[in-house]
Amino acid sequence: MSKRDDHSDKPRVPENPKPFAPFGVARSERIYHSPWCGLRRDIVRLADGAEREYHVFEIGDAVAVVPVLPDGRIVLIGQYRYPHGKTHWEIPAGRLHEGEDPAEAAQRELREETGYRARRLEPLPGFYPSNGITAHFAHAFVALDCEEVGALELDDTELLTVKTFTRAEIGLLLDSGRIEDAFAAISLMYWLRRSS
Amino acid sequence: MSKRDDHSDKPRVPENPKPFAPFGVARSERIYHSPWCGLRRDIVRLADGAEREYHVFEIGDAVAVVPVLPDGRIVLIGQYRYPHGKTHWEIPAGRLHEGEDPAEAAQRELREETGYRARRLEPLPGFYPSNGITAHFAHAFVALDCEEVGALELDDTELLTVKTFTRAEIGLLLDSGRIEDAFAAISLMYWLRRSS
Repeated sequence: MSKRDDHSDKPRVPENPKPFAPFGVARSERIYHSPWCGLRRDIVRLADGAEREYHVFEIGDAVAVVPVLPDGRIVLIGQYRYPHGKTHWEIPAGRLHEGEDPAEAAQRELREETGYRARRLEPLPGFYPSNGITAHFAHAFVALDCEEVGALELDDTELLTVKTFTRAEIGLLLDSGRIEDAFAAISLMYWLRRSS
Repeated sequence: MSKRDDHSDKPRVPENPKPFAPFGVARSERIYHSPWCGLRRDIVRLADGAEREYHVFEIGDAVAVVPVLPDGRIVLIGQYRYPHGKTHWEIPAGRLHEGEDPAEAAQRELREETGYRARRLEPLPGFYPSNGITAHFAHAFVALDCEEVGALELDDTELLTVKTFTRAEIGLLLDSGRIEDAFAAISLMYWLRRSS
């Protein structure tokens, strides 16, 4: 066991790893582009000069929001997802609109997908959902003191229901593996850690 | 506050939401296919008969592994990721090989990316990293009683270093936002919850 173990006083936040020198890009082939997503095939140059193929998906950055009511309960949405066909519990989330600030997008997605508005919005740690294949990044927030302000405002491809859960129920949903959406699992666990 | 709040005895795991009827697929256009990834554009049929475009990225399923040493320390890898260019702390992870069982892939990735082998492997909750755009799924595991068995075995596009951390340090890395890779953040938080 190292000197700085679980029982030590105030361990410091460890440093990030020393960065590797980035690959060079020998050339880049555009496979697809649309307003919604893109795909390119880069030929990268390694440190020894060798060239390798690297596919990169292009997806606009997103927000994810944990909506918390004044009594501490958490609002989830039961959402249908076409790619895998399941309906499961998630949190409000979506892409940033053109020129939109992440906090503004968080309030908008919260409003559209739950009908709630947050009196306070605080950042949670953000994340790269699949950094082996895309630079797509998610900004996460907790929306505190949420109040119901109106009906849902959904696109016609969005199918969802809204339900509130206690913290204990959120813990059970997580630990039983029922929060299969990564955006929801990460953000809910960060919130449970921060508010415990 | 509902009757079943944080202070209730043994709340039950809440049910999954009632599933929505899946969209029909009017037609599907293949945009790209390679051994590494694919992209298609489906025209889906909504319940009211309207047709909408839906892009789906195709990425093979993956594994993510939290390596734990006999003394409880956790092994992280400092990995360079070409899509965003950063080097940050992650856990061993990768795609399943053709016909490979997830547990077998977890042992293989652990071995290749850290040089450790697990005496015991236990499943953690799995997750869909980006279920709005892909059915890509990650099977997560905790690798217990890891022992060092050899050198790293990396592809030439994999740049990484290996380092061990205490549980307290992992908590600090998480809460300070330094675990930006979703696979690592989710799996590490599940492990901290289970082992606390």
